[in-house]
Amino acid sequence: MTRPRPHNVSAGPAILPVEVLERTAEAIRELDLPGDTSLESRLSILEISHRSAAFQTIHDAAIDLCHEVLEIPRSHKVLFLQGGASTQFAMVPMNLRRADRPACYIETGVWSKKAITESKMLGETKVVASSAATNHDHIPAMPAPETYANASYLHITSNNTIYGTEWDQLPEIGSDVPLVVDLSSNVGSRKMGIERVALGYAGAQKNLGPSGVTVVFVREDLIAREPVGVVPTMLRYSTHAAENSLYNTPNTFGILVLRNVLQWMKGIGGVAGMGAINESKAEKLYALLDASSLYRAHAKVGSRSRMNVTWTLGGSDADGATKRFLAAAEAQGFCGLKGHRSVGGCRASIYNAFPESGIDALCEFMREFERKA
Amino acid sequence: MTRPRPHNVSAGPAILPVEVLERTAEAIRELDLPGDTSLESRLSILEISHRSAAFQTIHDAAIDLCHEVLEIPRSHKVLFLQGGASTQFAMVPMNLRRADRPACYIETGVWSKKAITESKMLGETKVVASSAATNHDHIPAMPAPETYANASYLHITSNNTIYGTEWDQLPEIGSDVPLVVDLSSNVGSRKMGIERVALGYAGAQKNLGPSGVTVVFVREDLIAREPVGVVPTMLRYSTHAAENSLYNTPNTFGILVLRNVLQWMKGIGGVAGMGAINESKAEKLYALLDASSLYRAHAKVGSRSRMNVTWTLGGSDADGATKRFLAAAEAQGFCGLKGHRSVGGCRASIYNAFPESGIDALCEFMREFERKA
Repeated sequence: MTRPRPHNVSAGPAILPVEVLERTAEAIRELDLPGDTSLESRLSILEISHRSAAFQTIHDAAIDLCHEVLEIPRSHKVLFLQGGASTQFAMVPMNLRRADRPACYIETGVWSKKAITESKMLGETKVVASSAATNHDHIPAMPAPETYANASYLHITSNNTIYGTEWDQLPEIGSDVPLVVDLSSNVGSRKMGIERVALGYAGAQKNLGPSGVTVVFVREDLIAREPVGVVPTMLRYSTHAAENSLYNTPNTFGILVLRNVLQWMKGIGGVAGMGAINESKAEKLYALLDASSLYRAHAKVGSRSRMNVTWTLGGSDADGATKRFLAAAEAQGFCGLKGHRSVGGCRASIYNAFPESGIDALCEFMREFERKA
Repeated sequence: MTRPRPHNVSAGPAILPVEVLERTAEAIRELDLPGDTSLESRLSILEISHRSAAFQTIHDAAIDLCHEVLEIPRSHKVLFLQGGASTQFAMVPMNLRRADRPACYIETGVWSKKAITESKMLGETKVVASSAATNHDHIPAMPAPETYANASYLHITSNNTIYGTEWDQLPEIGSDVPLVVDLSSNVGSRKMGIERVALGYAGAQKNLGPSGVTVVFVREDLIAREPVGVVPTMLRYSTHAAENSLYNTPNTFGILVLRNVLQWMKGIGGVAGMGAINESKAEKLYALLDASSLYRAHAKVGSRSRMNVTWTLGGSDADGATKRFLAAAEAQGFCGLKGHRSVGGCRASIYNAFPESGIDALCEFMREFERKA
C-alpha cells in the first residue's frame, strides 16, 4: 500500500488486521493450502466447490477456532449462515417459540427493537425491560425472574452500536429459560460469560470478518425444538445443523476470512488477550471524555461499550462544533466517526482490529481540537 | 501464480476469469477507486461501510451492469440478496402466491423439486409438466395454457446443472401469469428471452461471482403484491426493493466481484458475445460425445445444456472405465469432472469463464483416452 492507511472507526463493515487482508488477497489469487496437493489448492478460494476437501479443511478450521478462540462451548453447534443478524431476528422466533409461552426481550436500542418487531409478527412477545425512556443510554437492571419464568426464551443484545452501551457480563438467568443473544458487535472482544448463551448469533462484519456470513451457535436441545408454525427449509436451524452448514452453498469466501481473523485473534491470546487490549483502548477514550468540558459521553458509567464509544459536543453552537470536529477529523485520516442520527455527535467504533496506536492518535487529535476550540 | 492453473470444470462455486481474480485481490488490499479521494477508497473493500459513497459507486455500477450486460429490463428492480437460490425457493411463494390461485411449477430436476417442496409447505401447488419419468434427460414440452391459466405464477428452472439440460429459449406464457425463473446456472450465458421473466433469481457462484450473493430481479407489480400470510421483514421483496438492497448490510465483497465479472463480460460483448463463445464450446464437446462409442451424452438433443455437459461411459465395465477416466483426467489437471450421483458418470461445467482452449484440451484428452481404451 502506497498511501498511509486511514484510521478506520467505521461501525461496520469495519477494520480488519492488515495481515488478514494480505493473506486473504493471496487466497483470492491461489489458495495454496499447506500440505494440500489437490487441484483445488491451486485455484482461488472463489472458484472451489464447497464440497471439496480443500474447502472442508478451511471450514473445519473455522468451526474449531470458534470453539477455541471465541470460547463457544463444545456442547453447541456452530453454523455459518447468510442474511446477517436481521435474518436471525426472524429465525429465532420461527424456530424457538413454543405454544402458550411468550418470547421475552430486553430492549436496549434499535437492534433489539427490530428483533422484537419480528417476534411480534409471529406470536406473543413481552418486553420485560427497556432503556427507551432515556434514549438507551444504559443497560437496564435485570428484571425479576418471574417476569420471564414462562418464556420460550429471553433475548438480549449484548452491545448496542448506535448508543454505545454494552452488557458488562451476560446475565445468568436460571436453567429453564434459554438465553438468546445478538452478539454481532462485541463477539470475541473479551470474556463476557458466553457459556451462559443457549443460542447466540453475530453478523461477522464487525469483529470477525466481512459482511455476508453470520456465525450462529446453538445448543443441541434447541436445534431439536419442533417449530410451532410452518418454517421454510432454509430458515430452520435443524436444516443447517444436520448438514454442517452445507445444506446449500455457504459464503465460502466469508468463511475463509473468518478463519483468517480467528487465527489472528488466536495469536493475540483469544478473548482474554483481546479483552485486555480492548479494555485499555476504551479506558483511554472514556477518560478523555470524562475529563473534557467540550465532549460529553452518551452512555452511562457501568453500561459503556468497549466497542462503540459515543459522545456529543457541548457549548452554545454544538451543531457547528460537531461539524468542524468531524471535518477536522477526516482531514487527519479518521474515517467513519460521525454518530448515528439517533444519538447525533460522534462515534468511534474501536473493534478488535483497531490498534491501540489509533486510539492514541484519536485522543491526541481530540485534545488538540478542544485546546484550540 | 507459479504453478499452471488447473482446468476447472467444477459445477459451482466455479471458475472465474484470471483478470477478475487479480482485480479482486487488489481491492482486498486497497480499493483505490478511480477519481475517488475519500478515505474509504484507501481501505479494503472488506472494511468499508455499505452506506459509504465508495461502496455506493460499486453497488450502482453492479446494478447498472445487470441491466446493460445481462439485459435485465429497466422495468425490473435488481436486488442483491443473500441465502442463495435455496432461499428464493421459499421467498417466491411467500411473496407471490395469491389466495385461491395455485402456484404452478415445471419439474426438470433436483432444483425445481426443491422449489416445489417449499411452495407445497405454504399452499396449493401444481406440477404442470415433468421430466421425472426419464431421469430428467430433457425439458418437457410446454403444457397447454389452461393448465396454469389461474396460477399465482409459473416457475421454471432455466438450466439443470445435475442432468445437463437447459431450456433453449425461455417460454412466452401470456400476459396474466408471471413467469418466475431460477436462472442460477445459465444466467448471462447467451440471449434466451430474459425479457419474458417477471421475477428471476440466480445464485452468483456459477456465472456471476462468488457464493453468498443472489441476483434477483423483479417487476414492479410483483413487488407490490401483498403477501397472503405472515412474511418476516427480511423475506419480503418489498423490504429490499424499498431500500435498494441496503435494508441491512449486504454481501459487499460479493457485489464488488459481481461488478468485476460483469465488466469482464461487457468487454466480451455481453450476452451476445458470451453466447457465441458458449455455443462453440458446447458444440465441440457434444460433437465428440455423439461421435464416440465410449461416451454417451445424458441429455437429449434439443434439451442440451451449454453450461453443464453430462455423459456416462459405456462398455462391459462402465464403472471401472469411469473411475479410470476420472483419475486420468485429474492427473491431466481437470478439476471437478465427476458427475452428480443422480446421473453418475461425468460432468463438465463449462460456464462463461471457462475458456475455449480448455474445451480443446478436454476434447483432446477424451479422444486420447478413448483411443487407448
